[in-house]
Amino acid sequence: MRGGIFITIEGGEGAGKTTLISRLDKKIYHETGRRTLRTREPGGVPIAESIRKIILDRKNTKMDARTEALLYAAARRQHLVEVVQPAIEQGKVVICDRFVDSSLAYQGYARGLGIEKVWDINRFATEDCMPDITLYLDIDPEVGLARIEANEQREVNRLDLESINFHKMVRDGYREVAKRFPERIKVLDANVDPDTLEDVAWAIMKKKLVK
Amino acid sequence: MRGGIFITIEGGEGAGKTTLISRLDKKIYHETGRRTLRTREPGGVPIAESIRKIILDRKNTKMDARTEALLYAAARRQHLVEVVQPAIEQGKVVICDRFVDSSLAYQGYARGLGIEKVWDINRFATEDCMPDITLYLDIDPEVGLARIEANEQREVNRLDLESINFHKMVRDGYREVAKRFPERIKVLDANVDPDTLEDVAWAIMKKKLVK
Repeated sequence: MRGGIFITIEGGEGAGKTTLISRLDKKIYHETGRRTLRTREPGGVPIAESIRKIILDRKNTKMDARTEALLYAAARRQHLVEVVQPAIEQGKVVICDRFVDSSLAYQGYARGLGIEKVWDINRFATEDCMPDITLYLDIDPEVGLARIEANEQREVNRLDLESINFHKMVRDGYREVAKRFPERIKVLDANVDPDTLEDVAWAIMKKKLVK
Repeated sequence: MRGGIFITIEGGEGAGKTTLISRLDKKIYHETGRRTLRTREPGGVPIAESIRKIILDRKNTKMDARTEALLYAAARRQHLVEVVQPAIEQGKVVICDRFVDSSLAYQGYARGLGIEKVWDINRFATEDCMPDITLYLDIDPEVGLARIEANEQREVNRLDLESINFHKMVRDGYREVAKRFPERIKVLDANVDPDTLEDVAWAIMKKKLVK
């Protein structure tokens, strides 16, 4: 048994992950008094941040899909051992923006590498240290991308330049992945206001956090 | 059938890979008139060079062994699709300094991740595009490292800082890997002068190159 709890938030661009995570972070502390750690992938530690730069660099147009999948898995591994696992061992509630399911949906499904193959390299990366619960924020990519465009502060990266079709494939991918892990992944309709989304998310997480 | 030929040269630090590759490169062109491509791992293309920098950076002392294995596989993939495979398709003789067997010996065996597990992620990276022949230059690590120290021009990197025991494990690892692929990997005694090593290497390669 591990002391802490590991929660991941997943979804396409503009699904509202960042806003939900901020709110849940406060909510968890307020309702349970437990210490939280809010983090994100890819990145979080120097080695993973260096890898993140390579992945998101707009100049790297020649990046092969398998290279991309291996880089995400490498960044994931380093972030997991340096940040996530120590926090879990300290009994914290870790809330992570993206994890393995992002790779399964983006590289496994949308890039066509196959969910099973990408799952295999991620099992190597994680040694089966998986989240206790994953909230997948489901939204029509056209709605999600419109939200991003309205947010001028956000810098455009290599993945934002993908076609709308790619983002639709990502959504289909996430839905496939959710079917594969029905116990762990909860699908939330993200086409609602932030208060409603928080309420729905909290109702699910409460069961894990308040015994 | 592929038009070109893919040759890899493997071995520990100071085994004489660079010198042998220079000589074979000239020899192949002189004896067969075939165009060659001389390259090395990790690196060779911008994305892979960026990954190489992360791997060899002396500051990255916290790098986990699995992160390292995934980064090598990512650099390998990109170099393979951008450099090696196009050259093979053009009918060239590709001579590559290090490839999959380095990962099997260094990360799989010496770092203790297991040869089979590292082989699995490398099959994902290479899609089974393997060398026609691999020359493993076998040398006592103490002799190899003494050669490096005598070469003042060479910059010391993160892997050079490993203990002598690590380099001995790498040698044991290479010998295990050679047993696993006896058809492909030829073990050459590298504790000889460069002329003799070239003659032995050429005698093996000639069979593949001159029909």
